[in-house]
Formats: sequence, structure tokens, C-alpha cells
Amino acid sequence: MSAPSSSPTPAPTSYKNTPNRSVSVRGVTFAYRQLGPDDGVPLILLNHLAAVLDNWDPRVVDGLAARRPVITFDNRGVGASSGSTPDTVEAMARDAVLFIRALGYDQVDLLGLSMGGFIAQVIAAEEPDLVRKLILAGTGPAGGPGIDKVTAVTIKDILKAVLTRKDPKQYLFFTGTSGGRRAAQAFVNRLKERTDDRDKAISVSSFRAQLKAIRRWGLQEPADLSRIHQPVLVANGESDRMVPSVNSVDLAARLPQGELEPLYPDAGHGGIFQRHDLFVPRALEFLEP
Amino acid sequence: MSAPSSSPTPAPTSYKNTPNRSVSVRGVTFAYRQLGPDDGVPLILLNHLAAVLDNWDPRVVDGLAARRPVITFDNRGVGASSGSTPDTVEAMARDAVLFIRALGYDQVDLLGLSMGGFIAQVIAAEEPDLVRKLILAGTGPAGGPGIDKVTAVTIKDILKAVLTRKDPKQYLFFTGTSGGRRAAQAFVNRLKERTDDRDKAISVSSFRAQLKAIRRWGLQEPADLSRIHQPVLVANGESDRMVPSVNSVDLAARLPQGELEPLYPDAGHGGIFQRHDLFVPRALEFLEP
Repeated sequence: MSAPSSSPTPAPTSYKNTPNRSVSVRGVTFAYRQLGPDDGVPLILLNHLAAVLDNWDPRVVDGLAARRPVITFDNRGVGASSGSTPDTVEAMARDAVLFIRALGYDQVDLLGLSMGGFIAQVIAAEEPDLVRKLILAGTGPAGGPGIDKVTAVTIKDILKAVLTRKDPKQYLFFTGTSGGRRAAQAFVNRLKERTDDRDKAISVSSFRAQLKAIRRWGLQEPADLSRIHQPVLVANGESDRMVPSVNSVDLAARLPQGELEPLYPDAGHGGIFQRHDLFVPRALEFLEP
Repeated sequence: MSAPSSSPTPAPTSYKNTPNRSVSVRGVTFAYRQLGPDDGVPLILLNHLAAVLDNWDPRVVDGLAARRPVITFDNRGVGASSGSTPDTVEAMARDAVLFIRALGYDQVDLLGLSMGGFIAQVIAAEEPDLVRKLILAGTGPAGGPGIDKVTAVTIKDILKAVLTRKDPKQYLFFTGTSGGRRAAQAFVNRLKERTDDRDKAISVSSFRAQLKAIRRWGLQEPADLSRIHQPVLVANGESDRMVPSVNSVDLAARLPQGELEPLYPDAGHGGIFQRHDLFVPRALEFLEP
């Protein structure tokens, strides 16, 4: 938390005001935002399906950035990043590594949410020296139960949301209880806190490529998680309808160094957003060197 | 436009405040609203895909109700009406006739928009004595070009709208020009004018049944329009992406008593809403006895 020495301007202290940046490598321009202290192993956040930079809960980002350098980015073809979105998790993982190395890092921590958690697992297995620690939220292993149904659940919830004039995230990320609905509204409002320099929305074609990649991940043979040697913190709500919560339990049980944060009650796929009050301190503790 | 004689309360003068009513017949409770003068042949409005009572542009309803008795209703399984939505246009037409006869009418005019226009054509052909005149907007004949693609266009535009945080109707009903976008916003705002006693949204399962019915209509053998003997006014925008505008031209050409309102420039599927200033006077003139 020392003042930045090499940076010409003070590091931003709030995700709401963090400037958009970009880095270009091998023909792809990656959009990203960086905040928090300059020193320490940076924490790279890996987006969920359809998400762009503005889909990260500012409470989670700001909470983590109080102690860790935090970087959010749009993978190839998503939001303001150029190129075309691949339709496999493995290719997305290669693109993420390309981005991380383009920033000059040779060691990072990863926080992957949902599809971002799939990508994080592949990076951790394929690049054991690059990844120090891993946080997997609302996600599951390749071949995990119900993951191939994400498209059906997503399309149904989007239709339901459009027809009832709600935000689809209310149905996809939260429970239908009164507590869940209140949490959904609060989260959706937090995502609107940033009013300037918002990111571009994902295109329909990139969204479809991601759906295809997720379905393929769900249909794969059950993954050999013993290839992931890093310490892993697993977190989720106990009622995840997108990537059923049993996948979180399974991840923590089968990962050699997995630990399960107790599943958040009355919370779903967006559990780490709904319970940022619990998740942020636990994640910071886990990420301590 | 004489004061109502048989009605215990004055007829409502604005769709915004028109009370919800219902009539039950053969186990189905149909939700409807009625306004305008008590005398004259009533004009029955037939909804588009996914629409409920609140999807009618109040400018169109109020404009027509200034001279004609106007009735909007939810067909079986839609909005506040009970029962389950059938997946053929022909069954929807039978339900609409059931509703019309339940209200005690033996002669009506019909205004059908999009899917409502499909239903109106079937009623006019099957019940020649019930229907006096017909207005077909944003619609086409069975087997018309592009109608089987409605599902694909709808799903794509819904995804695009959700991902860009717009109302899907902007893409589905209006052109992408600056004029089209302004018209879309104005229309979406008009639909919010009614704040009390709004209708229930359509369910996802009813929406899907309608999509199936529309696809079937599009895949039918080209219709024999010579069976529709009534005077028909055909109206649309010139850039309809849902039911391509060529279908409107084809309808007017092949209907024995069809007349085509010049297609509205820089307008799409929602042309009669966008150009209510042109459509309402033309429709009233056409409906004059």
C-alpha cells in the first residue's frame, strides 16, 4: 500500500472511476482496467458469460483492490477487446495468458467466475508457473453435472426477464426469495454506479460463441483435477441454478489443494456478489502471501 | 358519440384508465378492456407475439376509440387470461371467436397486428358473417416469405437488446435510423403511461407456443386469399424485418377487396404505432359504415 513509485498518476482507488486501458499483442487489442496497490502479485479477474468490464461488482473489486493489485479485462472479441471470440474454453485460456504476458507478468493470481472459472482451471493446469493461487466462484469442473444445460437455462431466464421487464441477472444470479430479489436489485444498482466510460456490450455472435464453449465444457469427460497443484479457494451460493452448486463441492473435494468457503445460504450463481461482505475478507486472507 | 344509454357508468375515454374486465366462457376467463362509444360495430384488436393488453399504443387505441367502440383482449393463456396457449393460428382464431361471441356480438370489425393479423385472416375466412371489415397491420398471408424466420429474428433481437440494455421492441418494431430510434423511445414511453392495473406479462411457455404457431403459419402452403370477401385495409412500415413488408403488398394485391395504405417510410413492424398520426385517421375513414 505504499504510494506508487513508477506510475505517473496515483493508482485509482475506486472501480467506478478506474480508466479504461488497452494493450495490443499479436493483432488483438485487449481492453482492461487496473487498480489497487502497485506491488504484490496481481489478481486477474476472469469474466462470466456475456460479461464485460462493467459486470464486476464494484464492492468486490474495490474490496480486493484495497489490498491487492486487481486487473479486469475483456477477453478476445468481448466488449471493447478486438478479434473474434473463440468457442472453446481452451482457446479462451490461451488468449487470457497472451493478455497476462503482454502486461509483463510472470506470476499472477486468478479469480474466475462461472465461465471465467473454467478458463482459470485451464490456465492453472497448463501454466503451472504463471499461476500462484486460484479463486473459483460459481463454477465447476469440465464435465460437471448440469453445465451443458447453461444455454437452456440462460435463454429461458432471458426470455422470462424480457417478458416481465426485469434484469435477467435477477433470475440467473439470485434466488427467487424476497431476500434474493432484494439482493438482485441492490447488485443491479451497484453495476450502474459507473456512469462514464462504460464498456461496450458483448455482441450476439460473441455471446453465442461463449454459449458453445460452455456447452462443450459441460459435455467433456470429467476433468482430472489433480493437474491443478495451486492452492484454490472455492466459493458459491448454495442455490446456483446456472452451474449447480454441487460442482463447487466437487471442485473443493477433488482439487489437491482445494478449500471450500461454506456455501452462502439463500444465494445463487452470484453468491460472491450478494455476500461480498463475507467473500472479500475471505479472499484477501486466502491471497495473503 | 352520443352519451352511453345502457351502460351504468360513462365509457372510459382513455386507454390509460380503462378498467380491466373479464368474461368467462367454456372454462376460459378472457381478460379485456373496452372503451369508446357504445354504439357502432365494435373493433376487436388482435395482439402481436408476446403482447398483452398493455402493448397497444394508447395513441392508436384512443384515436380509434374516439369514433369506434374498441375492445382489446388477451387470448387464451396470454396475460391475465386463463387456460393454455395453443400452438396454431387456427386454434387461436377459434378462441378469439369464442371470446367475441361471449361478449354477445354477431358482427365486429377486426384489427390484427402481426400474429394478430394471421388470426384475423382465419376468422374472416371461417366466420364470414361475423366479420364486417378487417385491418391487417405488419402481417402477411400463410406461407408468406420470411414469416418462418420470426423465431430466429426475435431471439436474436432479444439477445441483442438484453446485452445492450435496450427494449427489444426498439429492434423488432423500428428501423435503426436516428428517426427510428427516436420513434422507438417515444413508443416505449407511451406504453408506460398506464401505471395502475397493468396486465400480467405473458409466460415463457405461452410465448413459445406462439412462436411455434407463427413458424407453422410461415411454413404453410401459400394461402388462398380469395376466401376473404370483406373489405381489408393493409398497413405497415416499409422496412418490416419481422414480417417482411413484401407480405403487406402481397396481401393487398391478392385480397379481393384489399387496399394498401402507402407503406410508411423509415418505419418497420411497428409502423402503425410510429405513424399513428397517419394510421388512425385512415383506419377511421376505412371503418366508416
